[in-house]
Amino acid sequence: MTAHAITMLGTGLIGDFYTNTLHGQRGQDRVRVVYSRSEERGKAFRERWGIPESTTDMATAINHPDTDVVVVGVPNFLHEEAVGLAAKAGKAVLCTKPLGRTADEAKRILELVERAGVFGGYLEDLCYTPKTLKAVRAVEAGAVGDVTWVRSREAHPGPHSAWFWDGRLTGGGAIIDLGCHCIEIIRNFVGKGNRPVEVMCTTDTLVHPIDDEDNAIALIRFESGAIGQFEVSWTFRGGMDLRDEVAGTHGTIWLNHFLRTGFEMFSAGGGGGYVAEKAESATGWLFPVGDEVSELGYIDMFSDMFDALESGREPRETFYDGYVVNAVMDAAYRSAKSRFWEAVELDEWRGGATNRIAKTMESHEGQIIIKREVLPDGRTKLILKDPASGDFTDRIVAG
Amino acid sequence: MTAHAITMLGTGLIGDFYTNTLHGQRGQDRVRVVYSRSEERGKAFRERWGIPESTTDMATAINHPDTDVVVVGVPNFLHEEAVGLAAKAGKAVLCTKPLGRTADEAKRILELVERAGVFGGYLEDLCYTPKTLKAVRAVEAGAVGDVTWVRSREAHPGPHSAWFWDGRLTGGGAIIDLGCHCIEIIRNFVGKGNRPVEVMCTTDTLVHPIDDEDNAIALIRFESGAIGQFEVSWTFRGGMDLRDEVAGTHGTIWLNHFLRTGFEMFSAGGGGGYVAEKAESATGWLFPVGDEVSELGYIDMFSDMFDALESGREPRETFYDGYVVNAVMDAAYRSAKSRFWEAVELDEWRGGATNRIAKTMESHEGQIIIKREVLPDGRTKLILKDPASGDFTDRIVAG
Amino acid sequence: MTAHAITMLGTGLIGDFYTNTLHGQRGQDRVRVVYSRSEERGKAFRERWGIPESTTDMATAINHPDTDVVVVGVPNFLHEEAVGLAAKAGKAVLCTKPLGRTADEAKRILELVERAGVFGGYLEDLCYTPKTLKAVRAVEAGAVGDVTWVRSREAHPGPHSAWFWDGRLTGGGAIIDLGCHCIEIIRNFVGKGNRPVEVMCTTDTLVHPIDDEDNAIALIRFESGAIGQFEVSWTFRGGMDLRDEVAGTHGTIWLNHFLRTGFEMFSAGGGGGYVAEKAESATGWLFPVGDEVSELGYIDMFSDMFDALESGREPRETFYDGYVVNAVMDAAYRSAKSRFWEAVELDEWRGGATNRIAKTMESHEGQIIIKREVLPDGRTKLILKDPASGDFTDRIVAG
Amino acid sequence: MTAHAITMLGTGLIGDFYTNTLHGQRGQDRVRVVYSRSEERGKAFRERWGIPESTTDMATAINHPDTDVVVVGVPNFLHEEAVGLAAKAGKAVLCTKPLGRTADEAKRILELVERAGVFGGYLEDLCYTPKTLKAVRAVEAGAVGDVTWVRSREAHPGPHSAWFWDGRLTGGGAIIDLGCHCIEIIRNFVGKGNRPVEVMCTTDTLVHPIDDEDNAIALIRFESGAIGQFEVSWTFRGGMDLRDEVAGTHGTIWLNHFLRTGFEMFSAGGGGGYVAEKAESATGWLFPVGDEVSELGYIDMFSDMFDALESGREPRETFYDGYVVNAVMDAAYRSAKSRFWEAVELDEWRGGATNRIAKTMESHEGQIIIKREVLPDGRTKLILKDPASGDFTDRIVAG
Repeated sequence: MTAHAITMLGTGLIGDFYTNTLHGQRGQDRVRVVYSRSEERGKAFRERWGIPESTTDMATAINHPDTDVVVVGVPNFLHEEAVGLAAKAGKAVLCTKPLGRTADEAKRILELVERAGVFGGYLEDLCYTPKTLKAVRAVEAGAVGDVTWVRSREAHPGPHSAWFWDGRLTGGGAIIDLGCHCIEIIRNFVGKGNRPVEVMCTTDTLVHPIDDEDNAIALIRFESGAIGQFEVSWTFRGGMDLRDEVAGTHGTIWLNHFLRTGFEMFSAGGGGGYVAEKAESATGWLFPVGDEVSELGYIDMFSDMFDALESGREPRETFYDGYVVNAVMDAAYRSAKSRFWEAVELDEWRGGATNRIAKTMESHEGQIIIKREVLPDGRTKLILKDPASGDFTDRIVAG
Repeated sequence: MTAHAITMLGTGLIGDFYTNTLHGQRGQDRVRVVYSRSEERGKAFRERWGIPESTTDMATAINHPDTDVVVVGVPNFLHEEAVGLAAKAGKAVLCTKPLGRTADEAKRILELVERAGVFGGYLEDLCYTPKTLKAVRAVEAGAVGDVTWVRSREAHPGPHSAWFWDGRLTGGGAIIDLGCHCIEIIRNFVGKGNRPVEVMCTTDTLVHPIDDEDNAIALIRFESGAIGQFEVSWTFRGGMDLRDEVAGTHGTIWLNHFLRTGFEMFSAGGGGGYVAEKAESATGWLFPVGDEVSELGYIDMFSDMFDALESGREPRETFYDGYVVNAVMDAAYRSAKSRFWEAVELDEWRGGATNRIAKTMESHEGQIIIKREVLPDGRTKLILKDPASGDFTDRIVAG
Repeated sequence: MTAHAITMLGTGLIGDFYTNTLHGQRGQDRVRVVYSRSEERGKAFRERWGIPESTTDMATAINHPDTDVVVVGVPNFLHEEAVGLAAKAGKAVLCTKPLGRTADEAKRILELVERAGVFGGYLEDLCYTPKTLKAVRAVEAGAVGDVTWVRSREAHPGPHSAWFWDGRLTGGGAIIDLGCHCIEIIRNFVGKGNRPVEVMCTTDTLVHPIDDEDNAIALIRFESGAIGQFEVSWTFRGGMDLRDEVAGTHGTIWLNHFLRTGFEMFSAGGGGGYVAEKAESATGWLFPVGDEVSELGYIDMFSDMFDALESGREPRETFYDGYVVNAVMDAAYRSAKSRFWEAVELDEWRGGATNRIAKTMESHEGQIIIKREVLPDGRTKLILKDPASGDFTDRIVAG
Repeated sequence: MTAHAITMLGTGLIGDFYTNTLHGQRGQDRVRVVYSRSEERGKAFRERWGIPESTTDMATAINHPDTDVVVVGVPNFLHEEAVGLAAKAGKAVLCTKPLGRTADEAKRILELVERAGVFGGYLEDLCYTPKTLKAVRAVEAGAVGDVTWVRSREAHPGPHSAWFWDGRLTGGGAIIDLGCHCIEIIRNFVGKGNRPVEVMCTTDTLVHPIDDEDNAIALIRFESGAIGQFEVSWTFRGGMDLRDEVAGTHGTIWLNHFLRTGFEMFSAGGGGGYVAEKAESATGWLFPVGDEVSELGYIDMFSDMFDALESGREPRETFYDGYVVNAVMDAAYRSAKSRFWEAVELDEWRGGATNRIAKTMESHEGQIIIKREVLPDGRTKLILKDPASGDFTDRIVAG
């Protein structure tokens, strides 16, 4: 294992989360220099995290002679510039979500690292939460059979920083901010090789006086027939709602990452302080999480990135994945406007072909078995369909 | 209060649930005669519930001189005939869900009772669960502000009786069986006077070798801008998943009616027996409900029906509601086929007009306030939008 | 079924719950006359529930010519007088918990009804919650094997009415108010025939400036070896905590009756109103229950009482049970004072003898099997004990 | 930060958990040599974790020239020997729980490190779970007021390794195995400076054919009046039950570390594999945890240990804490035998004195306020006690 010296771009909430993770526990990697547009914020960040240097010049930070990895945590509209400089410097570059504001931009960003031959990692933390990693392994091991449906929901009362609200800088509203997480979580569960074919999306601006969507719901149809469903909102009340559900032909998974994780506290007040990201109150029933950087996936994400970098393999989440996510979001925005199902347009599909979810076809005395049900007395009730007439009947058979 | 003598049509699972409810606790109403197509099942049902008579002739049952109320619990394709006979007999008629196989059929059924001037009640039990009733009251009292989104989910491994699987007899698959519940739950939360405008739906037949859908997801747009979302499935694994979620501008409601209600049991085996409707196992971790007829709304439903009948008022769930539900399902089926948003076609809309969900518009020194956030130090962070430039900024102000 | 006309004694919270239950749903029983010490409260109660008459004379209420059942809902110190009058009037008498302030008093109350030959029912609602009834049936069917331990917990911030706080009127503090529930729940799970042998209890007055205990924890040893554990508190913060846990040799049961029942609501305020008994707030995350009279057992309790009365059988909860509960509470109070395990003193034990919880004794090649564990590869790991040396070893064997 | 080279003693489940943690994520510390009594197990462990050397000689491992830290993960009866050798070698020593089999042994172990002046850390992982750390911080910040009661429960179907079952090697049964965790969790919540005064404990051997207890419940009275309650069992069915509850004068905390953490999976079978420590099945409803080494506290524990070592401060959990835990367990065993409350005997108390939990004493017009309750109409109901007569009354006052 090699200790890495990092150029950190950006000093917002995400910069704090990233640096907290990198400097946490017994980790050997350290941020060496931080870039901020504001000298003041750069200095405060440097002092907060014990970082040797800060600068207001992005290129200087990226080209710092002692760093080998660049972490991009600046607003979306700066990703392309930042990745370009890092690629030019020949350094590994890890970029926060979403990769671009559009699939076109994401494609150019992808090409920047691929042409330069540098390591590119897509910092999609929520695909790395310990629960998600274990659940994905269970799905891959067949614990739920073929995946038929994945719901990924991320909702909270709206972002902390002003620039998130400005679609000119970000590329959109709640979809760009939160949908990117959901789409990639869904892809992990249905299989990364399972091509997203088309999207139906509806958006609205219900509560906030902004131009972009503060609510969106979308359905994504994959090649296997599986449906991904995301629900994102900047108008949710009660904290940060982060839940995923997976249905399969042989099982079910429910994940709750934030508001119901086995930590429940009632306080009549008097001992306030930070409860959790996006918590709305410090009294009444509260639902903190144990260790946010772990529960939100940051620790496993950076471990995977650096281990991949060192062993010469791809990380779990690549710039190509980021591009696919942007392509799905583009289709979602098109659909919200056209009100039709819109095709996911990908210049290049690197996954393979995926078979349709398999229907089981068993028969009993020439009839198709529709369902088996074990009765309390141990016998089995069959629901049967006559292939000729199409009529349905019940039959009770021994065990 | 008057004791009612009831004609029960049908001896399936729903007939059992209804009679269990009517004959349960200290209730004074009794089933006087039961109709079944099968003499054997009629006799067994009669003995099971202590009912004086059974018959295989529907008209005889309906015209029984001692009964004043007819409960229709026969398969969907018989609803129109049954309601017609009851209307002709001048008796109050309570019909199970869905009212019809299509909106046209439902409309004819509605007209049968309205023309005859008899009392018609739509037996939509899940709108009467104690949780739903209390949650709807909370919403009506303003506890969550304006409703922006309602999710209603009903999923299980598929129905118990053969006829449910035959779309010719029922009108469809999982939508007709389960979606009707969800639609009416959603209407209760967004407000019955809030017109359902259009529907986008996707369906598939993923697991069972049948012609109708075993999975469907739909979005319903209401006049206020609220979105209703239903997810129905006959392929869910793990029991019966009955959950509703309501988001509002000032609050959130999560209801879980079946699998997580505060009753959790692990059994290594040995003391089996009935766990709950659609439970898949009698060992391992099990999640029974306390009293199914109460938790599923049957008790409050019949109380409302008889009380409405006696006091001359409408019940909470009317045949007109059943017609609206069928119209929404029709639009869902059309949309699943056309892949477009389809209008909900109603010959007559008895609700009024509903205002658009209200955006709050506050300003601070000429800037639009996008969000307020109380900081740990007691001060407030404002996210502001300049109405001229469209630029967003942060500002920290005193509490 | 016969309709009953009831004399209701008492107009406090419990009188409201009882009458709400009796007059609720489609029930045929009605309160005919209500007694209150205060004319004003009697009148208000009468009007609230549509009761024909109220009186401030207890004997008049009890001897009312039209009533056949007397429900005792007055403070503890009046139970003996009330039951005595009802017994003398030859009427069925249903008495709220606890039966007496001490076992001696409870014994006299028991004798009053038994000597008069009238029906006596002990109104212990929490043994009748739908969850408890179903869980007890599962235990009786063997689903969890032999019961080894039962925890019953009831805790809230303290009672609503002044008299509850006066040990002279009630017989004690949180044990008398809440422990009586827990003890009888525990007895239902370990088996009513399983004699409570001794009790160890600790009490304290931690928060409220009163003389009686506001917190108590007790362990009850039963003849089978099972341990019952109750935790009662008048200082709990967060609402009303009503939970039971059952451990058995083959299974586990967890019941949550109030704060986590699948109904979760966040309200930023604005639509207040009643949330649930002992709720502390109307904003933030709230946990209402669906239908309190059902969830708290009142409906099933009265159904059992009247059905027992009509069919000439004993109700599930008898005055003798009330006496046993008081005897256990007496032992708890003695133990809290002496700090020793104290015997449960019963003049008469009507249950039988109960066998000790059975240890399973299997062997493998002359060694005692302590534990079996199925390994991921399908083989079984045995932990074995050598009967001669007392040494323990592992062994892996085929499936 | 300094990278540490570790001597690992022991290759059982705990050795795996420790090494998994040390070698996990981006940590810089590495196990350099492992000791096992069995050459075969040593070799397998070495290969499993990429460790350079293994040995069957404990002293050789401890005296290895390249290591600076010794981690003691051998059975209890070897702790004293191992710590003695490490102390003699002048190395930092981290010892698994329990420190000793008795307080006497623990005292000698404590003195070994203190006399040698080496760093000693008590590896009590469950005091380091992210949830516990955050909950303890909330309690210290006053979020729940004065702590009145802590329940800590650890229960599972029994240990995996043979030696755990042999009280001669361990010092006891479920108390020594699991109670040590609970006691130290309780101390963290009531405050480490809050002296444990006395213990009442009951034990039994209910299911397994062994000599030591497979079930125990104990109450610990602290100087402040707070009660700690632990429940430990080797007969629990359903997995590993790890829950803590804290009650305070102003709040409540509920922690669930294992079976209900927001990860719920139903599998009809077919994709087995490891679910979680002590899981009983790979089908049906399963409740895995995300990342066990994180959720069980191992990561934060080693971070604290090494950071303390490097900065010259004490770790959160010291050998003295281990000694206190053993003293409480000794008292528990004495109490289980004597059936009395038994004093906790400590040769030396390093905490200070703790005040009694404070009763609030407010008055209203010369009456003592027992309770305030906000009514739905905004007014406040006071329950008052007359200091002269001791009588209680209600009064409604303006908000």
